[in-house]
Amino acid sequence: MLAQHEASPADTLLRLSEVLDSLPWNADGLIAAIAQQHDTGEVLMLAWMNRAALEETLATGRVCYWSRSRSSLWRKGETSGAVQQLIDARLDCDGDAVLLRVAQTGGACHTGRASCFYNRIEGDRVRILSTAPLLKSPP
Amino acid sequence: MLAQHEASPADTLLRLSEVLDSLPWNADGLIAAIAQQHDTGEVLMLAWMNRAALEETLATGRVCYWSRSRSSLWRKGETSGAVQQLIDARLDCDGDAVLLRVAQTGGACHTGRASCFYNRIEGDRVRILSTAPLLKSPP
Repeated sequence: MLAQHEASPADTLLRLSEVLDSLPWNADGLIAAIAQQHDTGEVLMLAWMNRAALEETLATGRVCYWSRSRSSLWRKGETSGAVQQLIDARLDCDGDAVLLRVAQTGGACHTGRASCFYNRIEGDRVRILSTAPLLKSPP
Repeated sequence: MLAQHEASPADTLLRLSEVLDSLPWNADGLIAAIAQQHDTGEVLMLAWMNRAALEETLATGRVCYWSRSRSSLWRKGETSGAVQQLIDARLDCDGDAVLLRVAQTGGACHTGRASCFYNRIEGDRVRILSTAPLLKSPP
């Protein structure tokens, strides 16, 4: 459906339920989800969502992913306190990825770092950009 | 390997070849690749890389993905002119995603838009945020 509307003009409105019905969910029923800090633009993490996770996120305003390792909904920050408040969500041109603009509490990464992308490739080496902070118990 | 080093301090250096050997390439030999405009922070697109695509990107400084639909290397912009010059590449904590900070020529999206993420969810609707520009032939 999104592909059919790629030439539609700005401010065209589509029904969300029909768009979700038409998304190219992968064999596991998932699309990729990128979380970006809304004000700084920092890319925080990449995770996955099934339809239930996306619908819960939109309904509650708190980001919920699908955990591929645990095969369950993953309410981000439920145990760590590092919740993500949803600012807005944008699907890409072919609908197999969603960009979540969020307000992140604490570090997005399970190591406590602000972002998961802390391993920078430099020539034939990879540099760890930051030291993991000591993680505190969730508030 | 990256997971083993998640508590290593900042500026630890790892061998790239060993890191690449250890990445959790998926069943199709791929990791997810996010392209972000380096100066504005705009998230441009999500695509996929196999090891050959990542190594070519690092060697040439021009971003090369793996096209899942064509099952071939996809030298971004080769036909459209919308090339991506690599500024830097950062692997995430578990190594199944890479963030490419790039300098984008033209629009990253095949529609000609700057970003692929132009379908914003608003309540029970999806709003198309921008009109696709008329695409010109590559220079």
